Amino acid sequence: MTVSTHPNALRAELLALFESVRARTQRLVEPLEPEDMVVQTMPDVSPTKWHLAHTTWFFETLVLERSGRPYERFDDRYPKLFNSYYRSLGDPFPRSERGHLSRPTAADIQAYRRHVDAALAKLLDEAPDAVVAAVAPVVVIGINHEEQHQELLLMDIGHVLAQNPLAPTYRRSAYAPLRQLTPLEWLAFEGGRVAIGAEGDGFTYDNERPRHELLLAPFEIASRAVTVGEFAEFIADGGYRRAELWLADGWDLVQREGWDAPLYWRGASTHAMTLGGERELDPAEPVTHVSYFEADAFATWAGARLPTEAEWEHAAVARGRKGIFLEAEAFHPRPATRTGELEQAFGDVWEWTASPYGPYPGYRPFEGELGEYNGKFMVNQLVLRGGSCVTPERHARATYRNFYYPHQRWMFSGIRLAR
Amino acid sequence: MTVSTHPNALRAELLALFESVRARTQRLVEPLEPEDMVVQTMPDVSPTKWHLAHTTWFFETLVLERSGRPYERFDDRYPKLFNSYYRSLGDPFPRSERGHLSRPTAADIQAYRRHVDAALAKLLDEAPDAVVAAVAPVVVIGINHEEQHQELLLMDIGHVLAQNPLAPTYRRSAYAPLRQLTPLEWLAFEGGRVAIGAEGDGFTYDNERPRHELLLAPFEIASRAVTVGEFAEFIADGGYRRAELWLADGWDLVQREGWDAPLYWRGASTHAMTLGGERELDPAEPVTHVSYFEADAFATWAGARLPTEAEWEHAAVARGRKGIFLEAEAFHPRPATRTGELEQAFGDVWEWTASPYGPYPGYRPFEGELGEYNGKFMVNQLVLRGGSCVTPERHARATYRNFYYPHQRWMFSGIRLAR
Amino acid sequence: MTVSTHPNALRAELLALFESVRARTQRLVEPLEPEDMVVQTMPDVSPTKWHLAHTTWFFETLVLERSGRPYERFDDRYPKLFNSYYRSLGDPFPRSERGHLSRPTAADIQAYRRHVDAALAKLLDEAPDAVVAAVAPVVVIGINHEEQHQELLLMDIGHVLAQNPLAPTYRRSAYAPLRQLTPLEWLAFEGGRVAIGAEGDGFTYDNERPRHELLLAPFEIASRAVTVGEFAEFIADGGYRRAELWLADGWDLVQREGWDAPLYWRGASTHAMTLGGERELDPAEPVTHVSYFEADAFATWAGARLPTEAEWEHAAVARGRKGIFLEAEAFHPRPATRTGELEQAFGDVWEWTASPYGPYPGYRPFEGELGEYNGKFMVNQLVLRGGSCVTPERHARATYRNFYYPHQRWMFSGIRLAR
Amino acid sequence: MTVSTHPNALRAELLALFESVRARTQRLVEPLEPEDMVVQTMPDVSPTKWHLAHTTWFFETLVLERSGRPYERFDDRYPKLFNSYYRSLGDPFPRSERGHLSRPTAADIQAYRRHVDAALAKLLDEAPDAVVAAVAPVVVIGINHEEQHQELLLMDIGHVLAQNPLAPTYRRSAYAPLRQLTPLEWLAFEGGRVAIGAEGDGFTYDNERPRHELLLAPFEIASRAVTVGEFAEFIADGGYRRAELWLADGWDLVQREGWDAPLYWRGASTHAMTLGGERELDPAEPVTHVSYFEADAFATWAGARLPTEAEWEHAAVARGRKGIFLEAEAFHPRPATRTGELEQAFGDVWEWTASPYGPYPGYRPFEGELGEYNGKFMVNQLVLRGGSCVTPERHARATYRNFYYPHQRWMFSGIRLAR
Repeated sequence: MTVSTHPNALRAELLALFESVRARTQRLVEPLEPEDMVVQTMPDVSPTKWHLAHTTWFFETLVLERSGRPYERFDDRYPKLFNSYYRSLGDPFPRSERGHLSRPTAADIQAYRRHVDAALAKLLDEAPDAVVAAVAPVVVIGINHEEQHQELLLMDIGHVLAQNPLAPTYRRSAYAPLRQLTPLEWLAFEGGRVAIGAEGDGFTYDNERPRHELLLAPFEIASRAVTVGEFAEFIADGGYRRAELWLADGWDLVQREGWDAPLYWRGASTHAMTLGGERELDPAEPVTHVSYFEADAFATWAGARLPTEAEWEHAAVARGRKGIFLEAEAFHPRPATRTGELEQAFGDVWEWTASPYGPYPGYRPFEGELGEYNGKFMVNQLVLRGGSCVTPERHARATYRNFYYPHQRWMFSGIRLAR
Repeated sequence: MTVSTHPNALRAELLALFESVRARTQRLVEPLEPEDMVVQTMPDVSPTKWHLAHTTWFFETLVLERSGRPYERFDDRYPKLFNSYYRSLGDPFPRSERGHLSRPTAADIQAYRRHVDAALAKLLDEAPDAVVAAVAPVVVIGINHEEQHQELLLMDIGHVLAQNPLAPTYRRSAYAPLRQLTPLEWLAFEGGRVAIGAEGDGFTYDNERPRHELLLAPFEIASRAVTVGEFAEFIADGGYRRAELWLADGWDLVQREGWDAPLYWRGASTHAMTLGGERELDPAEPVTHVSYFEADAFATWAGARLPTEAEWEHAAVARGRKGIFLEAEAFHPRPATRTGELEQAFGDVWEWTASPYGPYPGYRPFEGELGEYNGKFMVNQLVLRGGSCVTPERHARATYRNFYYPHQRWMFSGIRLAR
Repeated sequence: MTVSTHPNALRAELLALFESVRARTQRLVEPLEPEDMVVQTMPDVSPTKWHLAHTTWFFETLVLERSGRPYERFDDRYPKLFNSYYRSLGDPFPRSERGHLSRPTAADIQAYRRHVDAALAKLLDEAPDAVVAAVAPVVVIGINHEEQHQELLLMDIGHVLAQNPLAPTYRRSAYAPLRQLTPLEWLAFEGGRVAIGAEGDGFTYDNERPRHELLLAPFEIASRAVTVGEFAEFIADGGYRRAELWLADGWDLVQREGWDAPLYWRGASTHAMTLGGERELDPAEPVTHVSYFEADAFATWAGARLPTEAEWEHAAVARGRKGIFLEAEAFHPRPATRTGELEQAFGDVWEWTASPYGPYPGYRPFEGELGEYNGKFMVNQLVLRGGSCVTPERHARATYRNFYYPHQRWMFSGIRLAR
Repeated sequence: MTVSTHPNALRAELLALFESVRARTQRLVEPLEPEDMVVQTMPDVSPTKWHLAHTTWFFETLVLERSGRPYERFDDRYPKLFNSYYRSLGDPFPRSERGHLSRPTAADIQAYRRHVDAALAKLLDEAPDAVVAAVAPVVVIGINHEEQHQELLLMDIGHVLAQNPLAPTYRRSAYAPLRQLTPLEWLAFEGGRVAIGAEGDGFTYDNERPRHELLLAPFEIASRAVTVGEFAEFIADGGYRRAELWLADGWDLVQREGWDAPLYWRGASTHAMTLGGERELDPAEPVTHVSYFEADAFATWAGARLPTEAEWEHAAVARGRKGIFLEAEAFHPRPATRTGELEQAFGDVWEWTASPYGPYPGYRPFEGELGEYNGKFMVNQLVLRGGSCVTPERHARATYRNFYYPHQRWMFSGIRLAR
């Protein structure tokens, strides 16, 4: 996302981007009942109405209230409720209790959104050029932030609905199972001195920078993601019962939680809960909702390993960004269909890498409060790459670094092998 | 509640009782938003819509499906969701996860209520006399059961709203603070050989029977409940910091939880969250939302003790059942106004007794599945007597035995002293 | 235990009692290695050397330091370590961390014992009559206190050794299995107005007083304790898998902990860990190490109930105190051998009653710090009666009230039925 | 550690190394009482006697029983007890319950050690050359393994003694405080294409291999470790109360645990518990017993960062391995004394690096059961470098990779800054 530097073009571009991202959020919640928007089924999950309010709070607090222009706050009690984790902005309401709040209602939060939308449109329309130029970078971050929360909102509502014995459907997908497996091929790369990371003017997060060189040994990477059918073989071969395949922390977790399949698989593991309701699994589709521990154990079982994020980026950077994204409205990964090239690198499923999430050499956080956006999470998490079927397409890029704890699996995470 | 034995009168009486209790439940939820009805703020609390469905499930499962008359179940998946704890009726959905269910929605559950209401009315209207006579006792239990849940519903929504930093109001009370303290007097009883417990045809729970004799030593009992002002003195005198006043388990709890006031007291303890919103405390009103541990520590501090349930019943049985009940729509206890007699025995606040909840000599549980109604809870809990400001008046009586764990305090529990 | 009021006789009697109880404690620890005396396998268990020190601390703090006579404390840091729970004597070292203390060593604590033994002997020998008379009641309590800890010490070391896969033996019993079942008979009592509780000059705990009257309905009580063979039938009949037999809290516990037999039963439940090592169970011996929940579920299964403590005392008071006590050195309950009378009421196993532990009408705690001895535990626990195979014989009596939480079962607890 | 390939020399060298490491272990436990050897104060800590037995089990199971030569096992029940975490060798006794085992006693375990020592000496003396050559690599690993446990044993007993209010001393150090601060200097490195990791015949762990190249940007590294005085400034500047200095997971931990100083600091933070007892802190000595979170927060506060492990190794490799090791018997880090070079890289304190612990490119685990030695821990941990004051000198080297979870701090961990 690169925006113009010409003042009038900038106003128009920002407003168009802003309105489009806000409108899409609204469309995403259309299938939901007010009751759906309240529930928090685990501390990692936030209620839908919290996402609606938090993304709005971001624009209110970091744009409108920092703009130097008059702005009347919608409700003085909201900032504490809808600050996610910015300690520099005060003590947030405890994350694990977000599901205890029936008020403000979904309707209240829609009014909050309209209030802030109008104020931001007014600001972009009426403020002096200098003000617009000053807030533009934060507006752009706010837009990207809301895109991230569009994905989180869908992950979270997916978890909420999947816990419900009534197996409610978010939205039925128009796609039918393919059931035709595309063979897995190994694509070879020479490695050597390569550069990864972002540079230039386009928007990126701070954690994608600076672009820097490193050495890669020659490697091979799989042409597509691991499928449901392949993962079912791992299970059938005792994958969840063989300690030697697992990292020690993973094995402890498997024992403690009694895991024996990816999250959302049901019964005899031929079906799973999805955003499209409970449906039969297609053996050709990418396995998803697996933790790092499961991805690593599968790779060990398969005699392979996970790629590093540098290998992944080096292999993927030449591909155009094409794949199954949120816009496809599949809400679930789709089988690969082609051979001979790196399929599914973008979209479908986030791909676990072997790389712990940390700063690139010379990393500098965003300035001010936004310095808390990414840097403070740089321990204990692993990098995932490529985007998923619920990522907005514009949000994905080869340098993008997503990150989760190794035990988490409610995101659309999958596996690509390397060796 | 005694019902006629004449068939036609019985039909009419049952239907009138049934419709009146169902209608009152509906009125109780009118002030609530759909979002309010979903939330569960602790495992003890159930979401409002769960109460609405569970009381309906009771009539469906234990009356309609046991009647031998044709009945089409509303939804085959509901019984598991809305069975509270009857193991003989299958494995209930886990209590602590009731708040994870956004579906069925509040509207779905209203449809469920209408379906069962119509079917029960039809049964009472059309079924042969023998069937009506057979189901009548369970219908009566179901009506009493729904009355209990009317109180639980208000306790629970009170907890939900009180956790919310926005301090939402359930319904404003029309009552103003009195601020005029009625002196506490000691009423003397000779004791001796006395009888407690229920007998006769009127409806009572199994745990109130059989009526039996026991010996009471002479005792004195306070003429009214302990007030907010008196409890504030206890706090000011270091009540929550003096180990010697507390039972050992209570002291551990106070340390672990950091308790320093009754539940819902706020800030400097001059205000509290109530169903009427956050309001100033009236020093003359009964203290409420105290645990057994707090009641016992207060009594120790005051140089007194809590009455046994036999003392309480013996002292209260002569009083007519008058007091501030749910029908008063105060939703909060009111100050005592008279001296010279046992004030506030009924209504206002449930009064902790020193009696562990157990079976009376010769106790026999209800038959069949309803045997689980009361008996299986007869350990680790204490008896409370008299009813509260959110108890339906018809539901209270001198022999009624309520019971809670000593650490619980989200009910309208208060303190009456004895010595 | 009644002591003389004549000064010289009093000195001699106290000293003899003191020396005898102290010497027996020493004999009890002879079979143990220093390592055995350190370990704490759960918060309820205390290390052996803690018992050795705590009983000594009692005499040091409550007799020697309160006597008004010169006494040089053995180590100023010990009182905090070895105070069990007397808040009025300062903040005790956390109970759950007693097993973290390797120092003072067992040898250090033996020196502490010798120091206090000598000082107490000197006090009883040399102090003026008035001082001896003043300390006498507390010395007597201290002696009874050490007797209690003799039983606790054996319960606790039993737990420690039973957790050890090497199955170490404390001391082999000289008794062989009898394997001959004495039939269970029902002994009938008329009830009526009866008195229970202690009176007179002999030593008793405060919780046994005052003697008071109550009404008992006619009842029957079993002539002996429930046996291993009978309990095995309960298990074989699905006892641990049938929710309808259990109190709700008990059923939750059974599920959570996966209980399927009494504590210490091994494998196919024909063997158990005992203080005499792992040995075959004798079907004729009393079942022991059962919780209240198991005792109650067994009684329900058997179509009976547990006696109240008043019933138990009324039935047992006529029996002389005879039975298998600590002095028999069986360290395990023995089968009943006679019919026609109340067998095993004393010794063998503590018998769960249905009575919650609470104050008798008119209860007054010991004075001063010792007021914390019993009263502050009067909630959430149940009374057990009669003493066990590890209770010093002198310590048992018909009015004695032992008490434990309903989930506990590492004591020698058993079951006697009533109906 | 490189051993000869000539058969007779090999026998002699192995035996000498074996006997020397075993003898040092014996010397390390001389100051301890049997009681000290039993206690486990947290799951991370193992009792001393467990270390004594586990290191012996290693030689018994992986050398003697794999040698093909006759060997009579000391006790068939020991392997389960003293297997640490090798799932391929059966299901180990639960780590968190090691402190529940009073038996085998310390004396039993000494007999076990003598038995295995004799058997191993006999094997090295009498077995054919081929057998000796075959077992030699595992004997060498066993010797290195015991060296690791010498350090663990001291860390663990340090934790045990530090929890004790009596503040027992392991062994007084002969060193006096210096109190003279050596200035911190920044040493510059050009970086570029550098190689790290081990190669050649000398013993190393699998995780140090293979040697491989990578690119380093120019960097500066501090000439010495961060001192107690510098860390005290961080505390005085609100270091533990300023969220902006901390990684998010670290901040949560600090709040939850109430951390406000390094582990073992006491009272006003001028004193600390050490293996030499409670003593005054020397402001010039390296701060130790800090977690990764504290190290990272300190670096942020100081405007610097932690080095990567590649930077550390590149900077340290030129230094000879000199420093304060176990052999110095200081049992605590000592102040730096020189400038102009990389002081304290080896010995004194392990230095946290910013590098997550993972496999080097092309990593291959040890073969067979020993494949579990290192590889399965390669997630969630961070690398520390250089060895400490309780590391055997022979055990340290520039390529050595130690690893701990970011919250752990009972090891002798310290901080070296980079930028």
